[in-house]
Parts: sequence; structure tokens; C-alpha cells
Amino acid sequence: MYITTIFWGLAVQLYSFCFSSTSYRVRIALSIKGIDYDYLGVNLRAGEQRSDSYIKINPAKGVPVLVTDEGDEITQSMAILSYLDDLYPAPALLPKDSLAKARVLELCNIIACDMHPVNNLRILAYIQGELGARDEQKDAWYKHWIAEGMNAVEAQLSKHGFGDFCFGDAPTLADVCLIPQVTNALRFKCDMSAYPRAMAIYEHCIALPEFERAAAANQPDMIN
Amino acid sequence: MYITTIFWGLAVQLYSFCFSSTSYRVRIALSIKGIDYDYLGVNLRAGEQRSDSYIKINPAKGVPVLVTDEGDEITQSMAILSYLDDLYPAPALLPKDSLAKARVLELCNIIACDMHPVNNLRILAYIQGELGARDEQKDAWYKHWIAEGMNAVEAQLSKHGFGDFCFGDAPTLADVCLIPQVTNALRFKCDMSAYPRAMAIYEHCIALPEFERAAAANQPDMIN
Repeated sequence: MYITTIFWGLAVQLYSFCFSSTSYRVRIALSIKGIDYDYLGVNLRAGEQRSDSYIKINPAKGVPVLVTDEGDEITQSMAILSYLDDLYPAPALLPKDSLAKARVLELCNIIACDMHPVNNLRILAYIQGELGARDEQKDAWYKHWIAEGMNAVEAQLSKHGFGDFCFGDAPTLADVCLIPQVTNALRFKCDMSAYPRAMAIYEHCIALPEFERAAAANQPDMIN
Repeated sequence: MYITTIFWGLAVQLYSFCFSSTSYRVRIALSIKGIDYDYLGVNLRAGEQRSDSYIKINPAKGVPVLVTDEGDEITQSMAILSYLDDLYPAPALLPKDSLAKARVLELCNIIACDMHPVNNLRILAYIQGELGARDEQKDAWYKHWIAEGMNAVEAQLSKHGFGDFCFGDAPTLADVCLIPQVTNALRFKCDMSAYPRAMAIYEHCIALPEFERAAAANQPDMIN
């Protein structure tokens, strides 16, 4: 399954935070493709992403950032995933067929656009800080957007999926995005019983070594 | 500049709302590629996206949805844009080179993930309804996330851009995403003076007929 990658240039590096689901997406893709890399931890809870030195690397103040073997820094997980799939094409994480590829990206973007951004740390901090939301209001906010998004994910899997993975019998970027999002939802104690297709895929994937290696618990910056 | 497209199948259709910036992205791409389509208005302000019949088309309750000439429905603007660029490759809106393509997607995703989702109608309705935000708090929320995102866009243009368009002398998906986002920010009276590169690109693009045809004012469902 794994490809031996010989680097003639620098080592690939990844700025990442163990609990960041967008970092987790990229870690899964690197793991599936068998790409070695140096792990550079950025502690989002300690605000390291807002330091002057880090803003020079990523003006959007987020993780992940991939540093390629030629030293180019790429921000935004979906851009990094596209780059990795172009440059390390085996195993492919996007289908060649245009419509099949659109189906994968559709599921990715329900997660990457509709779900993740509205529940990330900076948004939760703003609704509690500037808007004065109480803990139970923050909790309701989180669960509301998970439910809205997961309903759409489950409906799409029902219409267009699914096998052991979101689309068929091999992982795609849809699984790369889904597993970290479900992991987050479970950490926030969301009720996932209404999404049996998504949860079956989740259970299948997290048992695989390619996904396990990428999990928060197995990262060098894991904190409790 | 325009390509004559002969359809042997059905007409391409687009579910769209005049003021939806994600619909606007797809309208610009269709216009640049010279693809004829039937316009199906979905009035988001009247809640038409939450009707039972529409949820069958898009379980995520949003616009746009592209119906292909073979009758396949594709949701999520970024998935639709990828599909259109694959199937109607001239003029291309994504570079062939992997790193150049990643640069375009990086800018797209600052807008599609970090900016647009946190300021769309359903979020603004929730912070005013469930969280009780006052009008001035909603206004501050909107402007805060525009400023965070535009700072990152401007920094990326400064590092990696720019010409008449975000990347060089021809439009890419970065412009397709940037112009609708700036349009929204101006409608909400955001101060854009700190982003001279982005605003020069905006001014250049909106004067072009391909972009003008796609603007809200020129759609059949334009409302005041």
C-alpha cells in the first residue's frame, strides 16, 4: 500500500495542531500516500497561531501549513490536499471522472465550508466573548451546525454513496474530511445516531492504520 | 473569447439567488466559459431553500445547484466550479502546474471556508435570533470576519500575486471567488481601504462583460 518516496530536496514539513481537524485531514492524506514529513506543532489553545513569526507563514492565522520539499509554504487544507493528490498521485484521493470527482468534492465542501468553519475555536471564542453566549448556548450552537451538516452528508451518502468508504471501496478526500469532522462531533458529545451511513464509514476508517497514525493521540504535540 | 457549446442533452440549469455570493461565483464561471443555462431563482430571503421539494434537490438547503446537461444535480459551489473547469476546459480557470493551482485554491479557500460561511444569512439569523445579538453586534461580527479574511487575501496577493487578476493576466477561480466576496463586503459598508491589491483587481474585473453579466443586478430574480 505504501510508496517509497525519495526526496531529493528538503524534507516535507507540516505545521499542525493535534486536535485541529483540518490538520488531521492533511495528516490522513500524507499517511495514505506514505509521505514522510517533519511535524511542527502549533498550539492553537496557547494562541501560537497569532504570533508575529507565524503570521508571516500563514496570514490567515491557522493550521495546517504544508512546506513542500522545495520550501514552498501552502496554506488551507483543501489547497494542500489538491496539491498532494497532484504531486503524489498514487493512491489517488480524487476520481478521474469529472462527475465522480464532483461528488467527492461536494461531500468535502459540506464539511469544509458548511460545518467546520462555523464551529472552530475562533468562532466559539467570539460568541462567548463578544456576544456573551453562555456555555449551554455555545453547546447548542455547536450541535445545531453539526446536525445541519451531518443531515446533508447522510443524505448525499444515501443518494450517491457508499461502500466501506464514502464512495466505494477505497478512500477519497471525502473520507479524509469526514473522519476528522465526526471525531470532533464525538468529542463534543453530539448525538450521531441519525447518521448510520456516516458512522459505519467512520468506524471502518478509524480501525485502519493509515487513519490511526494520523489521529490526535498519535501526534508529538498531543496534550490532555 | 466565447465558445459555442452544442448541447446534445438537456439544457444546463442553475438554481441561484441573485444576492448569493456562492451563486455569483458559478454565474461568473459559466459566463467566462460561455455556457448557456436556464436560470432557476430560489429566494433565500423568503426561505424557499427550506421547502420540502428543494431539500430533495439540495439537502444542505443552499444555492447554487447546477443541473448538468445529463440531468445530474451538483451542489456546493466549489464542487461545481471544479466540474465546470474539467468539462469545459477553455478558458481554464485553474492552472495546470500543481503549485500554481494550489496558490489559486489557497485564495479561493480563504474566502470559501474562512470568510463566506461565517457571514451568510443563516448564521446572521442565528446570532440575532438564538443568541440575541443587537444590530450593532451583528454589524461588528460581519466586519470582523471580513477584515480577518481580507487581511489574509491581501497578504497572499502581496506574496504570490498579482496582475490585472489575482494571479497574472487572466481570470482564475481566485477572481471568481474574490469578486462576489468584495461585492458583499461593499454592500455591508465594510471599509476596504486597507486592501488596495484586492480592490484594484475588483475594479478591473467588474468592468468586464463576463463579470457584469453575472452580477446580481442582471439576474432575472433581482429584487430591491
